[in-house]
Amino acid sequence: MSDLVTFGETMLRLSPPGSERLETTSEFEVCAGGAESNVAIAANRLGTPSTWLSKVPETPLGQHVVGSLRRHGIETDVVWSHRGRQGTYYMERAGDPRGSQVIYDRENTAFATAEAREFDIDRIQNARVFFTTGITPALSSTLRETTASMLKAARNGGTTTAFDFNYRGKLWEPEQAEETLTKLFPGIDVLVIAARDARTVLGFEGDPRQLAHKLGSQYEFQTVVVTRGSDGAVGWHDSVVHEQDAYDTDTVSEIGTGDAFTGAFIASRLDGDDVPTALENAAAAAALKRTIPGDVALITDEEVEAVVSEGGDDLSR
Amino acid sequence: MSDLVTFGETMLRLSPPGSERLETTSEFEVCAGGAESNVAIAANRLGTPSTWLSKVPETPLGQHVVGSLRRHGIETDVVWSHRGRQGTYYMERAGDPRGSQVIYDRENTAFATAEAREFDIDRIQNARVFFTTGITPALSSTLRETTASMLKAARNGGTTTAFDFNYRGKLWEPEQAEETLTKLFPGIDVLVIAARDARTVLGFEGDPRQLAHKLGSQYEFQTVVVTRGSDGAVGWHDSVVHEQDAYDTDTVSEIGTGDAFTGAFIASRLDGDDVPTALENAAAAAALKRTIPGDVALITDEEVEAVVSEGGDDLSR
Amino acid sequence: MSDLVTFGETMLRLSPPGSERLETTSEFEVCAGGAESNVAIAANRLGTPSTWLSKVPETPLGQHVVGSLRRHGIETDVVWSHRGRQGTYYMERAGDPRGSQVIYDRENTAFATAEAREFDIDRIQNARVFFTTGITPALSSTLRETTASMLKAARNGGTTTAFDFNYRGKLWEPEQAEETLTKLFPGIDVLVIAARDARTVLGFEGDPRQLAHKLGSQYEFQTVVVTRGSDGAVGWHDSVVHEQDAYDTDTVSEIGTGDAFTGAFIASRLDGDDVPTALENAAAAAALKRTIPGDVALITDEEVEAVVSEGGDDLSR
Amino acid sequence: MSDLVTFGETMLRLSPPGSERLETTSEFEVCAGGAESNVAIAANRLGTPSTWLSKVPETPLGQHVVGSLRRHGIETDVVWSHRGRQGTYYMERAGDPRGSQVIYDRENTAFATAEAREFDIDRIQNARVFFTTGITPALSSTLRETTASMLKAARNGGTTTAFDFNYRGKLWEPEQAEETLTKLFPGIDVLVIAARDARTVLGFEGDPRQLAHKLGSQYEFQTVVVTRGSDGAVGWHDSVVHEQDAYDTDTVSEIGTGDAFTGAFIASRLDGDDVPTALENAAAAAALKRTIPGDVALITDEEVEAVVSEGGDDLSR
Amino acid sequence: MSDLVTFGETMLRLSPPGSERLETTSEFEVCAGGAESNVAIAANRLGTPSTWLSKVPETPLGQHVVGSLRRHGIETDVVWSHRGRQGTYYMERAGDPRGSQVIYDRENTAFATAEAREFDIDRIQNARVFFTTGITPALSSTLRETTASMLKAARNGGTTTAFDFNYRGKLWEPEQAEETLTKLFPGIDVLVIAARDARTVLGFEGDPRQLAHKLGSQYEFQTVVVTRGSDGAVGWHDSVVHEQDAYDTDTVSEIGTGDAFTGAFIASRLDGDDVPTALENAAAAAALKRTIPGDVALITDEEVEAVVSEGGDDLSR
Amino acid sequence: MSDLVTFGETMLRLSPPGSERLETTSEFEVCAGGAESNVAIAANRLGTPSTWLSKVPETPLGQHVVGSLRRHGIETDVVWSHRGRQGTYYMERAGDPRGSQVIYDRENTAFATAEAREFDIDRIQNARVFFTTGITPALSSTLRETTASMLKAARNGGTTTAFDFNYRGKLWEPEQAEETLTKLFPGIDVLVIAARDARTVLGFEGDPRQLAHKLGSQYEFQTVVVTRGSDGAVGWHDSVVHEQDAYDTDTVSEIGTGDAFTGAFIASRLDGDDVPTALENAAAAAALKRTIPGDVALITDEEVEAVVSEGGDDLSR
Repeated sequence: MSDLVTFGETMLRLSPPGSERLETTSEFEVCAGGAESNVAIAANRLGTPSTWLSKVPETPLGQHVVGSLRRHGIETDVVWSHRGRQGTYYMERAGDPRGSQVIYDRENTAFATAEAREFDIDRIQNARVFFTTGITPALSSTLRETTASMLKAARNGGTTTAFDFNYRGKLWEPEQAEETLTKLFPGIDVLVIAARDARTVLGFEGDPRQLAHKLGSQYEFQTVVVTRGSDGAVGWHDSVVHEQDAYDTDTVSEIGTGDAFTGAFIASRLDGDDVPTALENAAAAAALKRTIPGDVALITDEEVEAVVSEGGDDLSR
Repeated sequence: MSDLVTFGETMLRLSPPGSERLETTSEFEVCAGGAESNVAIAANRLGTPSTWLSKVPETPLGQHVVGSLRRHGIETDVVWSHRGRQGTYYMERAGDPRGSQVIYDRENTAFATAEAREFDIDRIQNARVFFTTGITPALSSTLRETTASMLKAARNGGTTTAFDFNYRGKLWEPEQAEETLTKLFPGIDVLVIAARDARTVLGFEGDPRQLAHKLGSQYEFQTVVVTRGSDGAVGWHDSVVHEQDAYDTDTVSEIGTGDAFTGAFIASRLDGDDVPTALENAAAAAALKRTIPGDVALITDEEVEAVVSEGGDDLSR
Repeated sequence: MSDLVTFGETMLRLSPPGSERLETTSEFEVCAGGAESNVAIAANRLGTPSTWLSKVPETPLGQHVVGSLRRHGIETDVVWSHRGRQGTYYMERAGDPRGSQVIYDRENTAFATAEAREFDIDRIQNARVFFTTGITPALSSTLRETTASMLKAARNGGTTTAFDFNYRGKLWEPEQAEETLTKLFPGIDVLVIAARDARTVLGFEGDPRQLAHKLGSQYEFQTVVVTRGSDGAVGWHDSVVHEQDAYDTDTVSEIGTGDAFTGAFIASRLDGDDVPTALENAAAAAALKRTIPGDVALITDEEVEAVVSEGGDDLSR
Repeated sequence: MSDLVTFGETMLRLSPPGSERLETTSEFEVCAGGAESNVAIAANRLGTPSTWLSKVPETPLGQHVVGSLRRHGIETDVVWSHRGRQGTYYMERAGDPRGSQVIYDRENTAFATAEAREFDIDRIQNARVFFTTGITPALSSTLRETTASMLKAARNGGTTTAFDFNYRGKLWEPEQAEETLTKLFPGIDVLVIAARDARTVLGFEGDPRQLAHKLGSQYEFQTVVVTRGSDGAVGWHDSVVHEQDAYDTDTVSEIGTGDAFTGAFIASRLDGDDVPTALENAAAAAALKRTIPGDVALITDEEVEAVVSEGGDDLSR
Repeated sequence: MSDLVTFGETMLRLSPPGSERLETTSEFEVCAGGAESNVAIAANRLGTPSTWLSKVPETPLGQHVVGSLRRHGIETDVVWSHRGRQGTYYMERAGDPRGSQVIYDRENTAFATAEAREFDIDRIQNARVFFTTGITPALSSTLRETTASMLKAARNGGTTTAFDFNYRGKLWEPEQAEETLTKLFPGIDVLVIAARDARTVLGFEGDPRQLAHKLGSQYEFQTVVVTRGSDGAVGWHDSVVHEQDAYDTDTVSEIGTGDAFTGAFIASRLDGDDVPTALENAAAAAALKRTIPGDVALITDEEVEAVVSEGGDDLSR
Repeated sequence: MSDLVTFGETMLRLSPPGSERLETTSEFEVCAGGAESNVAIAANRLGTPSTWLSKVPETPLGQHVVGSLRRHGIETDVVWSHRGRQGTYYMERAGDPRGSQVIYDRENTAFATAEAREFDIDRIQNARVFFTTGITPALSSTLRETTASMLKAARNGGTTTAFDFNYRGKLWEPEQAEETLTKLFPGIDVLVIAARDARTVLGFEGDPRQLAHKLGSQYEFQTVVVTRGSDGAVGWHDSVVHEQDAYDTDTVSEIGTGDAFTGAFIASRLDGDDVPTALENAAAAAALKRTIPGDVALITDEEVEAVVSEGGDDLSR
């Protein structure tokens, strides 16, 4: 039985090698990535048995995604669909001042039609934490309902609910996101949110400490984590605010950094760590993730501990 | 001014290397392919200035397609669209008994919305041949109208109309195809059709000679070419039937063989060759295409001549 | 609960690309392969839930192997070891007259120390079939005992035992193999054996029908399958002999053909098919495997059915 | 009709992957690059219709070059030659202190025999700007005459002439370059020159502002741009000097930076921008180019604007 | 001290991967190949210590060639030159009817300037066999003299001289070749010649047996070998003619087949084998070579023996 | 006759491309590396004829290693063994905080059985310097004796002995290393040792100058070099201490940096340079090595000189 159950869409990611441009590349590297499966994998690798729920087309592309996730160790419990596309996204890596670029190709997917009644809700209710993100309800009106139903089922089953706000400007407008997501807030115990989203989507003001405090108080979350990229993170819990710096890192792939952070935070909390320790582990996992190609945090407990205790490894031989 | 103008969708093709399976590949090779641009390129390389008309999303993926076609020498005259997807398809190569496999991902494309009024119809009316295929009207009801309008415009402008029947079972049912395409027949001068399609979609019977004759007579085409893969082709013109064998070939990529055949046939006819000579050149182009990776016939006049005159080249050094 | 449980070593396979030589290659393609996991995967893909038992070093190399197998859908239940190497093998592909070449590097492995008491024997006793091969007892004296114990446990639990003779001349001498393996025969219900091994290791004579009959009668097996590569196979069951031709196939990778055959035979039998039908499915699976790179039969039920019913697929689009 | 016409040699570039050495690499990445086509492509992508004139061997290598340039959108008007080589160059990338290394293999090329009378001079006279560089006359005595003729024809046709000094120490001695190129100066309206070349080849002294002023006054150029790599550039126009800093950039490929600068400068000026704005756009284009593999600035107007207005893009999704 | 000394040019070979066309490939595979070094390597791998003499530019490209040959085990004794190019050639692989294609880029090379006095002639005079081919004198008038001098020096030193006629139509006309090469014949002991060259360049008629006999008698060679590709070879020695069939082979790379044949023939003769045995070993080496990518016969004595005795290896494991 | 003879094991190195993880990589890049051959190659490229002695399995893997080293120009004099493995190691590259990781797979190698009597000791006694490292005696008790015998033979032959301490924590414990290696010290003339090893294995204290002085005085070495990575090195000779800074470098591969340093130091000393000059050259070679993939310093004299005189090259063209 998994301690963590996540629900969301995982896409096939297609990236030109190195810094090639989408316009001229002659090949794509393929991997699978999605916020909710990324979180499940990060948590699973750090010791929290995890399951990913989704709806996937019964095609080689859908099987590619599910096989990839299974390889990384998590359980997958998917509804196989005979209709709808497999979502893909194109990722062009670039240094400054060009900047990396993402093109979503995720309309009319099988996942967009996923309804709560298609899933085994016991899975959620028997877990210790249920997790999804603000991307899921952005994908279709059906998913808006499904997300709400699942959060409610989790709450009814006594399962802690965790949610990453994850606003995606390529999917919807800020107003729409605000309206939809704040409606879900009462059903959420642990909120992770980027400081930028708290400001531009929710209209909060202040430094990250203030954002965390305001969010926590106003919506009566159990825990709020405000993330600030390379500036670290702030955790609010029991009305206390804890600050955590980011670790220095040689970035190979920035995608999935936040998910590594969140997965490690959840795993650490489920492991009994207090919020400051969980933030520390989360920051270490995020730094490690950035050294790894692809979307997924292929990290180990030992590596997280090494970062926390000494800032990482020298070449040992 | 181009002698040949074609209209159709060109997709981004994603193929695993070698015989890898879609389900497990870690990379895709990328190229662009579509029946109508394949035909334009084959004809262009054999000396017929050619232009491809289409509607393409204004994204790096759309630009990839257009740049690829330009590289191969044809002119491109495209409507850039801010809406709609770039069509893609996944191609898994396999030997027998597995067999190659194609997965289309071409719903909701920009091309599906292309209307005749968006294009410069003079382009068509000033050409000597206008070409499209049965794939185009299979893609949307809008395209059904667009195809009809363009064929009519060509006819009005005195431009010869050529059409490859190209039935695609993954796009529509035989009945639907029959109803739609036979309505277009009165506007078509030159029909290319696979013997298999003539039988299973149009319900004709008999050997390929009979199929060609029946089709030609019943619909009053100027020319009918019935193709039979490795069994060669039959051409019907002025009530005379001509047979052409296929050349032996070491197949690297079967996709685009028919388009190489048709492009070479058109180029040869425009060059003043009679139907038997054009069939011979077409068969040579088809055999050469199969030795070349990708969808496109990157061939030369000299190579076609060498195949016709001596069955191809030895290593010369 | 898995219907099929297999036990054996899976190696990391390192192959130069294409036909490159080991001596000069600048890269290796990596995959995981081993007879017992290959069989589990083939059976699993054809509908028989399968589990692989093994002992693996707790290193990234061991995790590579386990992750690869999980990706292909089977359950893995492994003893993680802090001692012993991960077995590897080097595979050089070549056409005739050079011939492919295998170099084993599988001494001092963690697997060679695997003892029956380290595994959850209930797994075996609750399965419908337990499978291992003649490679396992060839690897160490410890494994000779482990194999015997597991077969005995299976028999005691009422689990059918299946065994592929799989003589490997690079691991031991024929006399040693004969002595060891014939001792195990009384505990085996279903024997798969190459005609060549029946002759050169066990000293039987006659055509494959006679080999099957003699083996079945002498050792009182339930079922005997004698395989003959591209000449097909013979099945002996209830004193009746059934012959099965091999299907034509474009070979990309010959490694794992026999395992695909055996896995499909077991899956088909567990699915209730009679021996002739199981042989037919097994031959189809073997033919499909040869079109797929690597050691593993990444095939589907639909593909096996297509081969059996029509000899395979044309390109469909 | 193109606004910009350039004339020069484009080579096939062969580079080992990553930081591999030429001496031991087992493969070369192939692309096409040459100062004059690089400038045409950069200008074309930023909205200035551009044509490249050249003489190219009628071989697959020559066709490779021409196809590559067409892919990037420019028009190509080439004299196909049955004699002479296709120029190539070998590029070894390396970080400090090794430093990148270029080996030219461009002797006896078809281009070295290009005479003015082989080209359609109307092309040049109908353009708004004609551009070539100091590399062209360095390649042969024939090309020295051709360059002079073309500049004269442009002047006669009322076409603005732009010239990048581009001294190449691997092609000729400073004295030879000085003598040849200063003779061309009276026919040039816009000169781009590296501060280093102004000093070591032309013997000017002073800071870049002084260099620009002295050059402009002494030779009566309309505009002089003195470039200083990562230290920015200085523009002199109407006796006024404008300074422009370089933008920070993550360098993937330094080759072609200057050409991106010059192409963007010309496009911006043709678009009606004043010199300071053109320098700003040029600096942005140069910074973007360095993030892109190969010789060519595959950039967009939007990207240039983003760099100018905000210093580049964050990952947006 | 080497038993075999060869003299000739070795080029850097650039080939698109797979069946890609030169015109569109985005990468080249790199290897080194030349008839005389290919022969030295084949002989060396079969037990004849061999040295290659040449003149090579002192650049990373020249060092690439020399390092590659050293890797394959032969000694290299080269004159390093500060002038002249490294010869290259482009190789496009293709199946029928396209056919593979070679583009030489070997003008103005360092090698073309090689004079006999630059080499240590003792090397040649202390060897048992000196070998070169008809390619060498085709490359420059200097090399015509050098070849003659070296053959004369070998003869004076009592070294057997062996020569492969190797007519290359891309280098010179048949008449020129005939005139030049027949002048060298008196200094040659062992001639290897393709039946095709004997007919079209030297004007001999008859079947291969007759060709061998006529050549041997007319020019008083010690040994003549007439090669016929997949139709085998004929050896003439002491007025006796021996026939040898070719072995069946799965061809990966046809380039270098003749050199493998000749190298193995020389090695076998130096090892004391009679002409029929040497022809047998040569045919086996040629068949093995065709299974190996690149120009060079990376074969072993054991493999040659296996082909001769049983027609090659099965997969053994 | 080589001036430098080294003795040691060279492994086949298997590395995932880029920053991929061992656990999930689908390919390995292959190269050969070992401290003693790395040193021989570095010295050889800088003008010191060098030979590597070793014992290697007679398999394609052993031949791969020997061929690779020959390619880099050194002589190889190896005992070919029919028993024992070829040592390999897996190298995972990673930036901070993950850090690169090495997994040795070098047990039961052929090399571990190498005895002094198997080698031609004259090779050592006729050289000017004999070199080995602390890795060799760490590999087996046989090698402990072999190392001692060879050092003694060198001393007896009047050959200078040089030794890199090279403590490898993955091979043995500090105590064991200290006991074994200090016993060898009386036979060593030139010691190279990392400051870290001097402290943690030998228990010395103080800054690097002090470490060098204490080591030199206590064990009566002729020369001691204490290396400190990016902090430079200290040389002690004739009771005088010389300091050398490290040069800045863009690191592509850190493996082999120390060996490049040591090889260049030896070559420089053999060339007659004094210790400060040799340290300077050594530091330059180390900086250059870090820009080159793989284990080996593919550098030239000119590059070392350029670094020493001006800190390296700009792009020149």
